Amino acid sequence: MASDDAGLGDTGVDPADLVARLTFDDAGLVPAVVQDHESRDVLMVAWMDADAVVATVREGRTVFWSRSRGQLWRKGETSGHVQHVRDLRVDCDADTLLVTVEQVGAACHTGERTCFHRRPADLVAADPSGTPAEVTS
Amino acid sequence: MASDDAGLGDTGVDPADLVARLTFDDAGLVPAVVQDHESRDVLMVAWMDADAVVATVREGRTVFWSRSRGQLWRKGETSGHVQHVRDLRVDCDADTLLVTVEQVGAACHTGERTCFHRRPADLVAADPSGTPAEVTS
Repeated sequence: MASDDAGLGDTGVDPADLVARLTFDDAGLVPAVVQDHESRDVLMVAWMDADAVVATVREGRTVFWSRSRGQLWRKGETSGHVQHVRDLRVDCDADTLLVTVEQVGAACHTGERTCFHRRPADLVAADPSGTPAEVTS
Repeated sequence: MASDDAGLGDTGVDPADLVARLTFDDAGLVPAVVQDHESRDVLMVAWMDADAVVATVREGRTVFWSRSRGQLWRKGETSGHVQHVRDLRVDCDADTLLVTVEQVGAACHTGERTCFHRRPADLVAADPSGTPAEVTS
């Protein structure tokens, strides 16, 4: 848990200063792309509100806003599949984050390493309804 | 332009079948993460409506929905910085796409290879207003 305690000190900024310069959408959120720092696989995309951005920087682990539950969601809180933050980038519009992480276990609640494990053909063949509920783990 | 003509035939699905199984947001959009197939850098995140998904699959190049201009945006149409699609994945919630591409030139309108070239400290130091307009190229 050293990473949690250490926080993301090397961002070199007060997280409030970062938040003040981000462009949040009408719901007060920015999408955050999470990438594995070793495999470089894109693991997942989730959403952060201002508090989640601050918590992610301060705690050095990913914290998101769960749109389905309407509350902060500390990734891995129930599953143990914590994402320790290694790097944080902001895109040119300042409305999207890229978080590079050390992933403990699987990023996806299905047990797959990445949430992006399905090709279009898999989706059409195996998921006739096509609208699974949002799950957080 | 061979890639454009060929389309993304190896998805093995009718793009309409794919679209029918995606969960679009209230604005009729899904976020699409674009990753370089060679460097594996995350290049950008943009939005697709149903027509953009269909066009991307059919044409084998990324086509997005420009929220600022309210119209389809064929990436590289003005800049020449086309993204030829190499692979397409759908996340576990079927509400986000991962598009692996062969990037011609720079993904970012600033001339940087990726839109995620700024660290938080860069943002705070160099962008005091913090709210650049969305630019499409």
